[in-house]
Amino acid sequence: MSDPSPLAAGTSTGPPQPFFHSRWVPAPAHVRDLGPDAGLPRGFRAAGVVCGIKPSGNRDLGVLVCDADKPVSAARFTASGTPAAPVLVTQRRCRLSELRAVLANSGCANAATGGRGLDDAAKTQGAAAIALAVDPAEVALASTGAISHHLPVAPILKGILAAGPLLSPAGDATFQQAIQTTDLTEKRASLEVALPSGTVRLTAQCKGAGMISPNFATMLCFVQTDAELAPETAELLLSVCVQRSFDRASVDGQLSTNDTAILMCSGASGVRVEPASEDELRLGEALDALLRQLAIMMVADGEGAERIARVVVRGGHPAGAEAVARAVANSPLVKTALHGGDPNWGRIVQAVGAALPGTAPLAVDVAIEGMNVCAAGAAIGYDQQALEAAVQGSELEYEIGLPGQGAETEVFFSDLGHEYIRINADYTT
Amino acid sequence: MSDPSPLAAGTSTGPPQPFFHSRWVPAPAHVRDLGPDAGLPRGFRAAGVVCGIKPSGNRDLGVLVCDADKPVSAARFTASGTPAAPVLVTQRRCRLSELRAVLANSGCANAATGGRGLDDAAKTQGAAAIALAVDPAEVALASTGAISHHLPVAPILKGILAAGPLLSPAGDATFQQAIQTTDLTEKRASLEVALPSGTVRLTAQCKGAGMISPNFATMLCFVQTDAELAPETAELLLSVCVQRSFDRASVDGQLSTNDTAILMCSGASGVRVEPASEDELRLGEALDALLRQLAIMMVADGEGAERIARVVVRGGHPAGAEAVARAVANSPLVKTALHGGDPNWGRIVQAVGAALPGTAPLAVDVAIEGMNVCAAGAAIGYDQQALEAAVQGSELEYEIGLPGQGAETEVFFSDLGHEYIRINADYTT
Repeated sequence: MSDPSPLAAGTSTGPPQPFFHSRWVPAPAHVRDLGPDAGLPRGFRAAGVVCGIKPSGNRDLGVLVCDADKPVSAARFTASGTPAAPVLVTQRRCRLSELRAVLANSGCANAATGGRGLDDAAKTQGAAAIALAVDPAEVALASTGAISHHLPVAPILKGILAAGPLLSPAGDATFQQAIQTTDLTEKRASLEVALPSGTVRLTAQCKGAGMISPNFATMLCFVQTDAELAPETAELLLSVCVQRSFDRASVDGQLSTNDTAILMCSGASGVRVEPASEDELRLGEALDALLRQLAIMMVADGEGAERIARVVVRGGHPAGAEAVARAVANSPLVKTALHGGDPNWGRIVQAVGAALPGTAPLAVDVAIEGMNVCAAGAAIGYDQQALEAAVQGSELEYEIGLPGQGAETEVFFSDLGHEYIRINADYTT
Repeated sequence: MSDPSPLAAGTSTGPPQPFFHSRWVPAPAHVRDLGPDAGLPRGFRAAGVVCGIKPSGNRDLGVLVCDADKPVSAARFTASGTPAAPVLVTQRRCRLSELRAVLANSGCANAATGGRGLDDAAKTQGAAAIALAVDPAEVALASTGAISHHLPVAPILKGILAAGPLLSPAGDATFQQAIQTTDLTEKRASLEVALPSGTVRLTAQCKGAGMISPNFATMLCFVQTDAELAPETAELLLSVCVQRSFDRASVDGQLSTNDTAILMCSGASGVRVEPASEDELRLGEALDALLRQLAIMMVADGEGAERIARVVVRGGHPAGAEAVARAVANSPLVKTALHGGDPNWGRIVQAVGAALPGTAPLAVDVAIEGMNVCAAGAAIGYDQQALEAAVQGSELEYEIGLPGQGAETEVFFSDLGHEYIRINADYTT
């Protein structure tokens, strides 16, 4: 393993980075970062243990449980046509608005494992339900790791038993570690959110460094709050915020088989968030900022990532703007130029043109870090030295203007460098 | 520059490779490879010169001319919404079924250059017409190189004059050199084709190593024959054969701004190819094999390529099969596994699932080099050692079966390794 990315948080010896550190996600005024040691909201306990799936001996099994009488939840899953067994079992067997527990493992995706994969997943779900004294339909499953291997059920059953006595309100740190694979940075937050009706806590543990694509929640992300939400409110908030965060993040354009995002609400704060209230708006703002920052952290921790970028597309039709943003974000030529600190914006024009066949000649505008380089499809005069300096930053912004009014979209993406190749050409089954 | 790819033809000291060397393109029985020194068909002359665009001092300007009274041609261009100026000028100003000459340069794409780019292209077209004593509407233009730079017109005008006295029937070799950029291998053929009505010659010079995507002819390819064809026949043959060759090749999924394929027919053999005749069928077979072998050579010379693969998708709907084939061919995870000789077929399943959202659980079959590894979406028993050995080859075949009858498609693609990163992160404007 070579040195972690320069963007890797938590590996420096300086003071810890504040959670909201991207220029693209200002912290809302009513949200306070409690730091990494504040723990889960009231009503939640978690733990991560070593059950022996990962050859590295790192933590690989996480358990999260909500002790509320009537927890409320919402969940989103990969759109893949070949979803993993834990996704199918959770979708088919669970009451998704009443989830009480999560059993998550790393080191094995339990994908492309057929009927045995479903049986294996169901066994672990049943065991977790017994150990936690809850209904199996309340236990969501999540797995991440290599595809096509069968789940090591026996170690997981032992791990569930080992995790039981370790479950604690401060267990979000080990739980987070247990769901990581090629991640280099911790993606975790504990926030205090001041709502008009009272103060609530909002926490999240997130995993993702490869197989990240702007197509729903392409990662694992678990979010907890002690606010009291109706199931419809939880569903609405998670759905809207996932669209504005994980849906807009791409490391390699690859939709995973295992993506899962789950929001769980204990209600233990006694602060009730009514639909269409100011409380709902404020909680939504906090969740939005939380998930956007996590999505950017996932991109920044993209396999081998050294630089990240945001492409903003304005104008044209929504479908065209979306196609352009994704084409730029997923272009290996744009991504290698980003990696090399190369101001070769011709590759952006190429990606735009490829995304909009039949529109020639397209009057596209391009700006990099606020410097206009291309107007109406043609190069314009600009300060080459200033541009070369600007593309050396760690967060770059590309703005693309299409003819016509209306659409606006964005995608966050990482560069493509040698480390991605090293990780993925050597990361064997 | 590091060592060329192991697949790079012409760099070994052994005997020259036969033109038809891929297992995926058997040479038709009526086609004979004349070797690299046989030259152009009767009625054609060509030359490549150094005009000074490329800093390397390599050849960078090619001229091709047909001396027939009434040449017949067909042309295909990029579908990009941001096509380069030479594409726009050729499309707008030329009689595409009566092209008599080609002026092609490397080192500058003349793309994203606006009105000045169109003027520059037109100037070079006019100069070539004067030098060759032909109509400007008979001169096709083609450029390749970095996007966003203005065309160096003065060196090209001098180059046109220098090329004039060098034009010769054996000029296909230098013409080919003049259109190359990051290519490491020569992609050129001189074939003899036995038709029922007589023998004709079929030659081609092709360029392409990056920005290659399965979406029409994403490269430069010039094809000549001394057969006599009606314009409709030339159009039909080029169109069908491009669909089965360059449309099915992908290096990096990136559609170029400059892609151009031109077939020119001098008729100088006196062998007339009537529509719907046995002659047309046989010439079509020869052109098909020629363009498929060239497409595979382009993929094998993909920037940094060390291994190539064919993905064949059978079953399902045509649109679904096409989406699956492209998703696999363009997946950076599949491509890095191909590079690393890694039998990690889970990534193939992941790419298939991503291409067909909403079909879960999809009963997909996967075979690698004829070995079944996944049936109905689940891993099956196979000889892991044999699979590991099989994926070390230089040409790999992935077969994917989708539920249902009907569709069948294929895409040729290259691996993704360090050399692609090195070329593209360092290849600056």
